[in-house]
Amino acid sequence: MKALQLKNIGELHRKDMPVPEPADGEILLRVTRCAVCRTDAKMWKQGQRDLRLPRILGHEICAVSPESGERFAVWPGTSCGHCVFCKKGAENLCREMKILGFHLDGGFAEYVCAPRKSLIPVPDELPGELICLAEPLACTLNALEQCGLQKNQRVLIFGAGPLGLMTGMSVRYFGGFPCIREINPARVEQTAQFRKQMDTALHEGEEDADIVINAAPSSDIFTQGIPLLRPGGFFCLFSGFTDDKMIPAALLNQIHYRQLSVCGAYGCTKKQMETALHILRAYQKDASLLIEKQISLGEVQEILPQILKGQVMKCIIKN
Amino acid sequence: MKALQLKNIGELHRKDMPVPEPADGEILLRVTRCAVCRTDAKMWKQGQRDLRLPRILGHEICAVSPESGERFAVWPGTSCGHCVFCKKGAENLCREMKILGFHLDGGFAEYVCAPRKSLIPVPDELPGELICLAEPLACTLNALEQCGLQKNQRVLIFGAGPLGLMTGMSVRYFGGFPCIREINPARVEQTAQFRKQMDTALHEGEEDADIVINAAPSSDIFTQGIPLLRPGGFFCLFSGFTDDKMIPAALLNQIHYRQLSVCGAYGCTKKQMETALHILRAYQKDASLLIEKQISLGEVQEILPQILKGQVMKCIIKN
Repeated sequence: MKALQLKNIGELHRKDMPVPEPADGEILLRVTRCAVCRTDAKMWKQGQRDLRLPRILGHEICAVSPESGERFAVWPGTSCGHCVFCKKGAENLCREMKILGFHLDGGFAEYVCAPRKSLIPVPDELPGELICLAEPLACTLNALEQCGLQKNQRVLIFGAGPLGLMTGMSVRYFGGFPCIREINPARVEQTAQFRKQMDTALHEGEEDADIVINAAPSSDIFTQGIPLLRPGGFFCLFSGFTDDKMIPAALLNQIHYRQLSVCGAYGCTKKQMETALHILRAYQKDASLLIEKQISLGEVQEILPQILKGQVMKCIIKN
Repeated sequence: MKALQLKNIGELHRKDMPVPEPADGEILLRVTRCAVCRTDAKMWKQGQRDLRLPRILGHEICAVSPESGERFAVWPGTSCGHCVFCKKGAENLCREMKILGFHLDGGFAEYVCAPRKSLIPVPDELPGELICLAEPLACTLNALEQCGLQKNQRVLIFGAGPLGLMTGMSVRYFGGFPCIREINPARVEQTAQFRKQMDTALHEGEEDADIVINAAPSSDIFTQGIPLLRPGGFFCLFSGFTDDKMIPAALLNQIHYRQLSVCGAYGCTKKQMETALHILRAYQKDASLLIEKQISLGEVQEILPQILKGQVMKCIIKN
């Protein structure tokens, strides 16, 4: 099969590889669409905590069973199923977690093997490129869940990239008020239609937010965002920071004095992906605006630097 | 009346002052005991966010109504009573909060004025010096509440000062397992009896903690404590940091990747003080070990540097 393998940091190879053999409990799937995530670009550029090389990347997968013809969204995790985290429905914290496209080969290929229990059947009316968005959208749900989002709360999102906009979508779905801060004028322009349709404020009423979320990797967002929270508010570390700046300890005193919470969010649960599919169905037209283009496996390499620079919205590999 | 007034940073004066006049809703109380808090020492040395000068310090107060002879623990806060925080029982976050000994004159005096609704009647069998501990103990309850402490959870406490030990007491009361880390050998020795009675581990099984709490003001605790948390664990910023060190942004990525929460805790609610009084009754003998000595108003000045250096346990002013 055709596949795109990250051999070493910076070395992405288009290869012919054998079709993988499913292990016990797994199923072989034909990948119909796989979205390219900023994390894929980050892995290629500088690596990532959970990346094991060499690796076929890709964790935002829509795939079909060659046997039954059934179409699935694939929860990319494989968790142990019996630890304290798995039992309480926080399986993304499982210490034995293996993720497709990180620890295991993922969806930048014609075929992928996935655990049967990770498959989520999808409605016929949702096109494959939108099904790919279920995973990143679920990650925004996980982030908002960590912050205990409630109806009518004001959520300030730093970054109008695909993840920032999807966070806005999730906030709307749960009856909150999203506001986006974006410093790139091109991106502000590019996302105008989406923000209008989703009634998302831009740089308005940013102060006294109930929740601040970083959907961009600069640690300056932490320094800027903490003072914008109301007492008792939540800052969600949704994106990891890719810089190595220093944070003054004095900033942490604001967390102390105003009883703020800073909570991390990483990945998503299968249940959150199921909810994400409901949201995608509800906001199908809006979600379509997030997709910039559909590309071939061969075009991924040239897209990665553009993703890192925030020059493109969501790109979907079409097999 | 005799009083101890902080006129400016570093300038504590013993003065004769007029007995204060209670405003509407307030009552004049005779202070029988007032504990000296590390925050009092910090105010004297370097100030504090909520300090308004000149000020009679002292917020850990046991007082008697000269009219009825009834004895009270005094919740030192005065909140608006109608904002969103007051309504949901988080009145310590009220933006109009005024605190005795911070914004208003406190208990380092013969008399104090306090709102009638801030008074908590206390059981006869509890001596006044222990009643003074209700406020700091309530602050540890507030901290543990922010972290969602559950039965059987392991709580790593940095610092075996009075606040650290009281945190251990609260953890025990709620069925958790406290472990204390203390770098000062003198303090380790000094607190041996208390730790034995409360069955508090010392430097044992510190890893994989459910909760880490800083009961000491060095920001190094943040850097050391975050890696010791299990996935999904809570770091409580209980003490503010008095240094101005820098925290690497990379440390915050641990919060992201492992879905940790960093939550602030500041002050306490009246309800938490009521619970604290129950705990003090349950652990009366143990709590007595926290008290180093009872002193006069005139001895406070010389005690403050010792408190900052961690050389003394709880000192109580006896009128």
